[in-house]
Amino acid sequence: MRTVYVNGEYLPENEAKVSIFDRGFLMADGVYEVTSVLDGKLIDFDGHAVRLSRSLDALDMASPVTKDELLAINRELVTLNDITDGMIYLQVTRGAPNDRDFAFPDPDETPSTIVLFTQDKPGLADNPVALKGIKVISIDDIRWGRRDIKTVQLLYPSMGKMMAKAAGADDAWMVEDGFVTEGTSNNAYIVKNGKIITRELSTDILHGITRAAVLRFAKESQMVVEERNFTIQEAQEADEAFITSASTFVMPVVEIDGEKIGKGTPGRVAPRLREIYLEESRKVAI
Amino acid sequence: MRTVYVNGEYLPENEAKVSIFDRGFLMADGVYEVTSVLDGKLIDFDGHAVRLSRSLDALDMASPVTKDELLAINRELVTLNDITDGMIYLQVTRGAPNDRDFAFPDPDETPSTIVLFTQDKPGLADNPVALKGIKVISIDDIRWGRRDIKTVQLLYPSMGKMMAKAAGADDAWMVEDGFVTEGTSNNAYIVKNGKIITRELSTDILHGITRAAVLRFAKESQMVVEERNFTIQEAQEADEAFITSASTFVMPVVEIDGEKIGKGTPGRVAPRLREIYLEESRKVAI
Repeated sequence: MRTVYVNGEYLPENEAKVSIFDRGFLMADGVYEVTSVLDGKLIDFDGHAVRLSRSLDALDMASPVTKDELLAINRELVTLNDITDGMIYLQVTRGAPNDRDFAFPDPDETPSTIVLFTQDKPGLADNPVALKGIKVISIDDIRWGRRDIKTVQLLYPSMGKMMAKAAGADDAWMVEDGFVTEGTSNNAYIVKNGKIITRELSTDILHGITRAAVLRFAKESQMVVEERNFTIQEAQEADEAFITSASTFVMPVVEIDGEKIGKGTPGRVAPRLREIYLEESRKVAI
Repeated sequence: MRTVYVNGEYLPENEAKVSIFDRGFLMADGVYEVTSVLDGKLIDFDGHAVRLSRSLDALDMASPVTKDELLAINRELVTLNDITDGMIYLQVTRGAPNDRDFAFPDPDETPSTIVLFTQDKPGLADNPVALKGIKVISIDDIRWGRRDIKTVQLLYPSMGKMMAKAAGADDAWMVEDGFVTEGTSNNAYIVKNGKIITRELSTDILHGITRAAVLRFAKESQMVVEERNFTIQEAQEADEAFITSASTFVMPVVEIDGEKIGKGTPGRVAPRLREIYLEESRKVAI
């Protein structure tokens, strides 16, 4: 049984509850982060803490904890749940006012809700799926317009995963106005003639913490990175494709809408980036 | 202290909680309905029950109760909380699986969550605001593409109410591709030369239960109804404007983006429709 964190208390997971009036439950008025743990240490904690602040600011929501407190809670959960490899999920909502109302509650009367829990994933970095890659389908991107804010409005990404499953694939890439935005819970990339191509940052996509790190490592390794839109057709004709996220790191994509990418097996760039990302991230994990 | 309903139990509101793993809390994977109560009776219970089924079906979500059970719970809450006039809020989510996962849980292992609570609003139908009307501002509609499903993804409508408040207005009308979609929690209408104009039903707007009833009553009263798109400018130049929703019934709009509609006071059509709607709805309330 996991020990989780809810508003200052460490609780057994089956006792971890929030009010039915919590705005996270009633109105999806909340943001989240997922941080990986490798060898018992947090991967890019700073990046996730900074993005959390950014999401909270964008929604005019108060942070219930300082960065130092957040780090301490993360570490305590890793210890209490004896996590070597896995993830830590964090959610902050605008709290539970006395009644449901579209207007934001006064933050002095209604403190934010904060919830954290761990997910134990032994061997997370050695996921055998990374050796053969994943298959994706394309679906329309019908999400709201502020995907740069990491809100819990995840119904459509969740539906997208189910559409992928029904099609015999692993995930879905979302397409808007003819161009790929991102995966259901990850950023999307293609590789052509050695060049790494990924959509530029905007309100259309999540500003991935793993994306930022991977692009930095790629440039440091003298790889060429081009931030621009691409289509599904261009992706199908690319040499390689891959995704990045905090929990899958760098994961090759070997098929898009039934079309094999390259030889239909991971190429050279994505596995190399995965290796570099994991190596460099472990070095600075805290 | 209210008595609320959570998964088969009637509880004091401060003990009403859901698991932090509930998909309503983690992923906005839930739908809702708001039904008005007048004179202790439910207004258009059937309409709301039918739309609830429609929302659940659209998301491949199981209903946790039959329509008869739902009616019984509604009535029990009205009695327990001694509600003469007010609202009943209902929410169904895809339940609380053992862990967070984008893929839907097996419904046989994870039953839906159902929550209902009352809001006591004495004199709800005699709201003095209806006599002077409300002011609205226009904002971009950046919500997801399936607004016909009444999901709890209400962050943007909530932000819209705050934008309206900041601008000294009461609500916001959302605009997409140049045309008004709807209000933050209501359908939008204008009246020109005696004709009632409102956007046609599609995935772009909520299929309002009050909208359906009001349009039916309007037609029965020999009024002309035209279902088509309209712009903010056309609305500003209209003779009247109004909104409908389950809790505001028919509410005149007297100003849009600072421009007075007609004389800047409620006209003749909206108040008449409000009167007819309330009269007819009370007759068949159950």
